[in-house]
Amino acid sequence: MTLDLPSFSDVLAAAARIAPYAHRTPVLRSRSLDELTGATLHFKCENLQRVGAFKFRGACNAVFALDETTAARGVVTHSSGNHGAALALAAKLRGIPAHVVVPEGAVASKLAAIEAYGAVIHRCAPNIAAREATAARVQAETGATLVHPYTDPFVIAGQGTATLELLAETGPLDALVTPLGGGGLVCGSAIAAHGLRPGLAVFGAEPEGAADAYESLRRGQRVTDLVPDTICDGLRGTIGEENLAILRAEAVRVLLVSDAETVAAMRLVWSRLKQVIEPSCATVLAAVLRYPEHFAGKRVGLILSGGNVDLDALPW
Amino acid sequence: MTLDLPSFSDVLAAAARIAPYAHRTPVLRSRSLDELTGATLHFKCENLQRVGAFKFRGACNAVFALDETTAARGVVTHSSGNHGAALALAAKLRGIPAHVVVPEGAVASKLAAIEAYGAVIHRCAPNIAAREATAARVQAETGATLVHPYTDPFVIAGQGTATLELLAETGPLDALVTPLGGGGLVCGSAIAAHGLRPGLAVFGAEPEGAADAYESLRRGQRVTDLVPDTICDGLRGTIGEENLAILRAEAVRVLLVSDAETVAAMRLVWSRLKQVIEPSCATVLAAVLRYPEHFAGKRVGLILSGGNVDLDALPW
Repeated sequence: MTLDLPSFSDVLAAAARIAPYAHRTPVLRSRSLDELTGATLHFKCENLQRVGAFKFRGACNAVFALDETTAARGVVTHSSGNHGAALALAAKLRGIPAHVVVPEGAVASKLAAIEAYGAVIHRCAPNIAAREATAARVQAETGATLVHPYTDPFVIAGQGTATLELLAETGPLDALVTPLGGGGLVCGSAIAAHGLRPGLAVFGAEPEGAADAYESLRRGQRVTDLVPDTICDGLRGTIGEENLAILRAEAVRVLLVSDAETVAAMRLVWSRLKQVIEPSCATVLAAVLRYPEHFAGKRVGLILSGGNVDLDALPW
Repeated sequence: MTLDLPSFSDVLAAAARIAPYAHRTPVLRSRSLDELTGATLHFKCENLQRVGAFKFRGACNAVFALDETTAARGVVTHSSGNHGAALALAAKLRGIPAHVVVPEGAVASKLAAIEAYGAVIHRCAPNIAAREATAARVQAETGATLVHPYTDPFVIAGQGTATLELLAETGPLDALVTPLGGGGLVCGSAIAAHGLRPGLAVFGAEPEGAADAYESLRRGQRVTDLVPDTICDGLRGTIGEENLAILRAEAVRVLLVSDAETVAAMRLVWSRLKQVIEPSCATVLAAVLRYPEHFAGKRVGLILSGGNVDLDALPW
């Protein structure tokens, strides 16, 4: 099988392509979190990105990379939330139709955002097979282009643009940590980081209850039969074949964190950094706290991936 | 009675004095909040200031304006929270003692911050007479300088520095809204705003349950006998004599908001702007939503005053 993987130049092209539409998000620091971790932390606030998550970068890049004729037939995806909202907004900005397949059980606030941006919603059962089958049906019926939430090379390249901005602002970092679900963010980030600084250590923070990427690397083959059990609703996807190949090529290391560690880290970000972030997003600080051997004394970048959380159902 | 009131040049001096210590906080925008209010909103994020509130500006200015001999005897204040923490940190940075008189019932997270910065805490009954009497006793015993939380001219001048930064970043604004409790923030902000742009409309957003400034302006004399009843723990102080004089001189208008409106606005800031803010802070957006006649179609600055909230006791 030949995989279509993005390169560093694809990340650079994505940065130019999305610049008119995406926010250049701020990087925040915290003395108290530096003291707590013994590291120098730089938080890239993608919770302040449009639609409240980094996902807008990849979706925007994929939508604006389409030629006119293809674009006119629209785009389709399956998403538990943020990617769906991101694709809906990107399609709205380009003036083309968007179809979003949403599994039952998605976070209400994320579903509301997808509808608010004008996408057609298609409900399905909450498993990857049902998601892909429903998306394929919509694709066949409408001629829309499938924009996969994390294996699409334009999506991966787009996600990497946050790291370009982070490094431009912070200067050299020793380590970079992003959440790890399907793998779009961590792969794009690793390609971007190593394009600028080959020796930078890149880590994906993955929930113990959705450790398919960790297990895939450990066993030497892609694990697709794990049933996720984690509060991190954005990290329940199964690592993609393309994403696994990039994890290996870029020597990304996976750090597992428990949901309890993630909730504690989420509270720390809310109380110390004053940023509203969603559970998936807190895995990065949870990883820095659990694995000081990789981070203490280092200059560390952390991608705060998103801030779409149900304020009536906080996990504490 | 001759009042010691700060001028625009005092605000400029404060900006220079606190620059080595205070954060230059970001200004955030939100398309969805602009749509909701019909205005162009610029949020100055003092929830990201040191100690999590604008109060650090005034306290820092007051502490660093003291001569060496006076400073060495320490500082004392009474505060329901943020000013106490701010004075404690400012004193720590200068290496002098701080005494903080804290009324019973103060928010736990704010009390913990005061202790963490190394101040000596003196508890008292939750009324202004007990606060002032206890502070006077500490002052007499230690020789410490009283730094009143909102009537001190150095405190007022320091609070105005946030508005200097806001206007430097946004360019001309039509209106500025800050929370209104004792009056330190709104007075400093008005002096700063009118020093740069005399015609700028300045509003103080005050809880209906602590409407002493509103009533004082309406009756033409300072009202000191209202018993505050509001969830805005930072806005329960009684308008100062100095502050009332400045409100009149600068033609500041007071806009009343209900606690229900404030809680709704707080949720909007959390969910749309992704910023953790405390209830007092949300009065500004509540006022813009309730009084569109002052803000619709205008370029508006809003000071998000602080983000110190008990995550286990959210008001919804």
